Amino acid sequence: MEQLLKTAQIQMKVLTKKTDALDLAEKLIEEEVPRDTDLICLPEMFCCPYESIHFPAYAEPEGGPAWRRLSQIARDRGCWLQAGSVPEIDEAGHIYNTAYVFDRTGRQAARHRKTHLFDIDVEGGQHFHESETLTAGDQVTVFETEFGPVGLCICYDIRFPEMVRLMADRGARLILVPAAFNLTTGPLHWELLFRSQAMYSQVYCLGTSDARDPAASYQAWGHTLAADPWGRVTGELDEKPGVLLSTLDLSEADRVRDQIPLLRHRRKDLYHIEWTGKGGDE
Amino acid sequence: MEQLLKTAQIQMKVLTKKTDALDLAEKLIEEEVPRDTDLICLPEMFCCPYESIHFPAYAEPEGGPAWRRLSQIARDRGCWLQAGSVPEIDEAGHIYNTAYVFDRTGRQAARHRKTHLFDIDVEGGQHFHESETLTAGDQVTVFETEFGPVGLCICYDIRFPEMVRLMADRGARLILVPAAFNLTTGPLHWELLFRSQAMYSQVYCLGTSDARDPAASYQAWGHTLAADPWGRVTGELDEKPGVLLSTLDLSEADRVRDQIPLLRHRRKDLYHIEWTGKGGDE
Repeated sequence: MEQLLKTAQIQMKVLTKKTDALDLAEKLIEEEVPRDTDLICLPEMFCCPYESIHFPAYAEPEGGPAWRRLSQIARDRGCWLQAGSVPEIDEAGHIYNTAYVFDRTGRQAARHRKTHLFDIDVEGGQHFHESETLTAGDQVTVFETEFGPVGLCICYDIRFPEMVRLMADRGARLILVPAAFNLTTGPLHWELLFRSQAMYSQVYCLGTSDARDPAASYQAWGHTLAADPWGRVTGELDEKPGVLLSTLDLSEADRVRDQIPLLRHRRKDLYHIEWTGKGGDE
Repeated sequence: MEQLLKTAQIQMKVLTKKTDALDLAEKLIEEEVPRDTDLICLPEMFCCPYESIHFPAYAEPEGGPAWRRLSQIARDRGCWLQAGSVPEIDEAGHIYNTAYVFDRTGRQAARHRKTHLFDIDVEGGQHFHESETLTAGDQVTVFETEFGPVGLCICYDIRFPEMVRLMADRGARLILVPAAFNLTTGPLHWELLFRSQAMYSQVYCLGTSDARDPAASYQAWGHTLAADPWGRVTGELDEKPGVLLSTLDLSEADRVRDQIPLLRHRRKDLYHIEWTGKGGDE
């Protein structure tokens, strides 16, 4: 199993026209991502303004035009692509906040629908109600790569330690999180969440955010980062557009787990996280 | 229910003679803790050098001489006392790292035996094997007060988000943690753990450490702290002896839980933490 993984996390502005956003993503990948990159990550809702009202209008089915372009980008580069998240509509008309992963041949390797919807009302701060237009997903998502199993969730999902535990128990040593925190939750919790999830489950944890756009209705925190299995930040952007390049040594997760055996020290004779959703046999 | 709780966390040096350590604790409480304090907290193993080899020699049964003195201190002050932790021996001869709580009348209100034993081997850093002489506890500990339910665990226990979740689910808005991190794990994880557990389960989280003693075999990190339900540090000491005074407004936990409803947003239809130990009906 390969242990060294070169990643590029693209912190880009959200453009209101979907094809412009896809053009921009492709341009940034072409111009700013080294050819030997194994995995490219895009942010949450990078091609749809982050407002509940827009999700239905921007939604496409799996396999739709945006999906096909993102698949093509992965195939052209021969690279893994965690294609941020996009609004997805299913056959029943439900809308999801969905993160796709394409493998080096452009095949869809994973699909995660945001499982915890972002409905908050902070006094004097951020208000948001994704559930006005979105339906929640119902799965823990881990996909196989030549680097071993990799976990995937979206933004607010990372606030739940149970999710990362379940991913780690399915073998993940790396968790990918397209996200868009804001100017209330970002300064309070962004770095604390990624560092602590990385520490508790002894995984690499990559948070890829949209860049902040002073003209946008939703002010993204930015600060795309990578945290290692010790819970240390190994790289972090500011709020402006940029690309964060990292080389992750996934065997470091094994070494941390040998030295401070947190996963093994859980008292499974006393408690365990039971998964009662789909795929419970995994 | 009372909401405002005045706490005093005493960061004291460990003295090798048990009665000296108890004398010192009593002196510090007398001289440095305001009379209107509701809850006094002492550190982990404050009256026993923190080495596995010493635990059996220092151990006493529940109700033994150290226990009686600590109970007396609580009664004399008319104050809650989380009496750090001490080595306890049970009737079968098992030794535990045990935290007692005494109420304002000196009655034992809670007993927590450390549930996750500290067995780590960090390369070039800390090595420790509590399990050489200690037996692990098997309970989640929450006790009733006029401020509502309060949770209690010891040091390494705080590394497991499941523990704090289980305490929060039993109503705790405040978690007490006598602890003794070291110069390896302290700078890496001390503050990150308390802030993040406070954030995930939206509780106050108080970590009370021994002071660092350059002459001791185990170098404690110190940095006794209080974190609020937003995950912010509201007060923190350095490594020297000292007393951290705080006034906690427990209703703040309710307000945070209203604004960012993390506990309610857990997808209990998909996953839950199942307690299979004793007291599972709580």
